[in-house]
Amino acid sequence: MRIAGGPASNGIAARLARELGADYLEVRHKLFPDGESYVKFEGEVEGTVVIVQSLYPPQDRHLVQLLLMIEAARDLGASEVVAVVPYLAYARQDKRFTPGEALSVKTVLRSIERAGADYFVTVDVHKRESLDQWLSIPHVDVTATEALAEYFKGKLEGPVVLAPDRGALWRAELAAEVLGCEFDYLEKRRDRETGEVKVEPKELEVRGRDVLIVDDVVSTGGTIALAARAALGMGARRVLVACTHPLLAEGALERVLSSGVEEIVATDTIPSSVSRISVAPLLAEALSEMLAQA
Amino acid sequence: MRIAGGPASNGIAARLARELGADYLEVRHKLFPDGESYVKFEGEVEGTVVIVQSLYPPQDRHLVQLLLMIEAARDLGASEVVAVVPYLAYARQDKRFTPGEALSVKTVLRSIERAGADYFVTVDVHKRESLDQWLSIPHVDVTATEALAEYFKGKLEGPVVLAPDRGALWRAELAAEVLGCEFDYLEKRRDRETGEVKVEPKELEVRGRDVLIVDDVVSTGGTIALAARAALGMGARRVLVACTHPLLAEGALERVLSSGVEEIVATDTIPSSVSRISVAPLLAEALSEMLAQA
Repeated sequence: MRIAGGPASNGIAARLARELGADYLEVRHKLFPDGESYVKFEGEVEGTVVIVQSLYPPQDRHLVQLLLMIEAARDLGASEVVAVVPYLAYARQDKRFTPGEALSVKTVLRSIERAGADYFVTVDVHKRESLDQWLSIPHVDVTATEALAEYFKGKLEGPVVLAPDRGALWRAELAAEVLGCEFDYLEKRRDRETGEVKVEPKELEVRGRDVLIVDDVVSTGGTIALAARAALGMGARRVLVACTHPLLAEGALERVLSSGVEEIVATDTIPSSVSRISVAPLLAEALSEMLAQA
Repeated sequence: MRIAGGPASNGIAARLARELGADYLEVRHKLFPDGESYVKFEGEVEGTVVIVQSLYPPQDRHLVQLLLMIEAARDLGASEVVAVVPYLAYARQDKRFTPGEALSVKTVLRSIERAGADYFVTVDVHKRESLDQWLSIPHVDVTATEALAEYFKGKLEGPVVLAPDRGALWRAELAAEVLGCEFDYLEKRRDRETGEVKVEPKELEVRGRDVLIVDDVVSTGGTIALAARAALGMGARRVLVACTHPLLAEGALERVLSSGVEEIVATDTIPSSVSRISVAPLLAEALSEMLAQA
């Protein structure tokens, strides 16, 4: 097995090769003056080739590089190609919210499969159903929630884990298990008289407790900031945030921290100044299992 | 037949719809704060849908938008999808120049076909063989060379058309037929003693004549500037340039004009300040023929 690090592997490929004791296959890349990507495998392309390429911004450039690498690996002699995509872009456009829209996650996933991938591995995809729905190749979604919760173990007083919405409740539950505490999700309620949107925990009391907000992706930071202000307003002692993908659009980190969040910790699926946890060990485990079953 | 203008149609879709008397199908698009593209058809998607999307920079963004539109059009009810790509990006990476490289033009063309295109139409692709090699759907490559030459008709004195290399000689011939003049190509010769690279016409004399250099794409402008200086050095009266795709990387237009080129004219496959000729009439003709044959 060879682990190839694409231009947007963010070090994960090299860590993965070390974890698995596998060969690292270097991928040279450059941009032509007009902005086109050039990729080249610097070594023998044979056997199982694992291509690691995250799809953080610029997403489209990274996606095209991934498609180029998958098809080239196939053509150059790989017996099978595993696409490891730590952050899957376009995952939030997972249905036609209004008629006529492109179903972007479908096209991205199908493009990866059609380029020649035999396996697909990702981390904390926005909706797991998207993978089942659009991929016909074996696929795995790894969650980094527990690894993120581990980071906070022993650092919190009277902790409670909150998901920012009901869909993410299972993530809160996983984190709560690690921390041995309660969990809940935040409900948005619009005040019928003032029209103001309020966010509060469905059931739990947060007064005097450390609140850990767990989410898959922090993009503009708006949701987290709203949740943090709400928790502090209800008397929470401290608010901390664990998120897998620190997408952090311009201004997001400021927005999150200025809302009173004491610390935000994320993984390395996207490079950022809060990417403290590497997903490489989780991916190594998932890959080993997946390939053993094949 | 409906003509849909993608975010990188550059007005060609609307002109095409007018030429063909076909319905124009609007495509709304936006970028999310993280840089992901969103596309949406604003109208009935049915029958033959012609999607116009050029792949000028940012090439990868425009390619992803094209894939999103093709797959969405299919899913939304188009009976057939025609991909009209006035400028095909990645066309110059048409072989593995050294082992291990991605064969980019293959992946781009195959991705477009695999997304669901039934027909493919482009303008002055770098090498026509690429289309035959990598597409299994019907495809047409339209040349804008004659239309560009028409622009110069009656404006030149004792004209001679030059191709910057042997591969483009057929373009020079086409332009020369329109202008009723001779044509030739430029040969690069390295001086054995000084190592200096010289460029000169293979056979013709340019002294006192107007030289029209014809090429498919002007990227950095280096080749054209070299050719122009050579022609002027050999006593050419004036040097003019006709190119289909004004890719014009930063500084290219300065480089071309400061080399002594009096005028450079291009088409609208890529937006630029020298895009004087629309390829819409050529595309309309090609589309009509192609669909009539089908």
